[in-house]
Amino acid sequence: MLQTALHFSHTLLRDVIHEGDCVVDATMGNGHDTAFLAELVGPRGLVYAFDVQEQALANTEKKLIELGYQARVTLFQQGHEMIDTQLSTETSLRAAIFNLGYLPKGDKQIITKPDTTEQALDALLPRLLAKGRIILVVYYGHFGGQAELKLVQEYCQQLPQEMYNVLTYQFINQKNNPPILFCIEKK
Amino acid sequence: MLQTALHFSHTLLRDVIHEGDCVVDATMGNGHDTAFLAELVGPRGLVYAFDVQEQALANTEKKLIELGYQARVTLFQQGHEMIDTQLSTETSLRAAIFNLGYLPKGDKQIITKPDTTEQALDALLPRLLAKGRIILVVYYGHFGGQAELKLVQEYCQQLPQEMYNVLTYQFINQKNNPPILFCIEKK
Repeated sequence: MLQTALHFSHTLLRDVIHEGDCVVDATMGNGHDTAFLAELVGPRGLVYAFDVQEQALANTEKKLIELGYQARVTLFQQGHEMIDTQLSTETSLRAAIFNLGYLPKGDKQIITKPDTTEQALDALLPRLLAKGRIILVVYYGHFGGQAELKLVQEYCQQLPQEMYNVLTYQFINQKNNPPILFCIEKK
Repeated sequence: MLQTALHFSHTLLRDVIHEGDCVVDATMGNGHDTAFLAELVGPRGLVYAFDVQEQALANTEKKLIELGYQARVTLFQQGHEMIDTQLSTETSLRAAIFNLGYLPKGDKQIITKPDTTEQALDALLPRLLAKGRIILVVYYGHFGGQAELKLVQEYCQQLPQEMYNVLTYQFINQKNNPPILFCIEKK
């Protein structure tokens, strides 16, 4: 079976992340990707994970403790627009992941916003290592989702091809708005 | 590095094709994909390969002889609109590949056409096995290319999601019109 966008996001991360790497989970949510990243970076690596919602941090922390991964993850109860403030400009990142939309099973009123997504991307790109990847899995079926999708599309399309490859991976015959994956790879 | 559309087409084929399978190369060209498919299907398998151009058959035959794969390939000097005529309705196909555009290093006046592409797809879909894949790598920078891209997009989008998954894989920040990959997977 063809991989879903979510599965393919993990394949693309697994391809580039090695033990000891620093990476960012820009949308912690229930901590699913945070835990996945923590496994990939190993005991010498570091995951910075961001979310505004207290429930997201509680769920993620619980998951990390169960897996024994707490020491390799730093959780911020802040939106990903704070990446630039929280991460030193010297930090070299191998990868970052965004799941844009709302927290699954959470409050559908609390959604990610185009302007903070843009701020986060502006902070991540200069810190990204060569061959590093930023992946955005964009859910856009909810109110406000189309505006965010448009921002991501336009932001990605204008990235200079001399410095970045930008890929989209998308199912086009489905009526239930499956997420679209964007992958920005630094050359 | 992110796989090019061409590389990813091979990954998607390798995932599903096994020894003994029957598959179609709808656009033989210089025989690159024909040889790749012949390797995957092995000595008990069969590749049906189509091209209108004599030079394509000559190049492909030479390549197959060098590799010792002649016995597992049937070459047709006919366009892929003849698939329905040449293949029995009983033929079960695991996969098919199209490289739409023109023969690399060949006559740029001889291009693939939307109407024959549609006829070929209409013939392939009912012969495709469950979990089988039809892959189209669409070059669209040349004269007539946009019309073909539009046909493929519209054809794919209207395929019922109960029966098919249709994926696109595309680089979106490049000015040299890199090809777009479409993958139709039968459920």
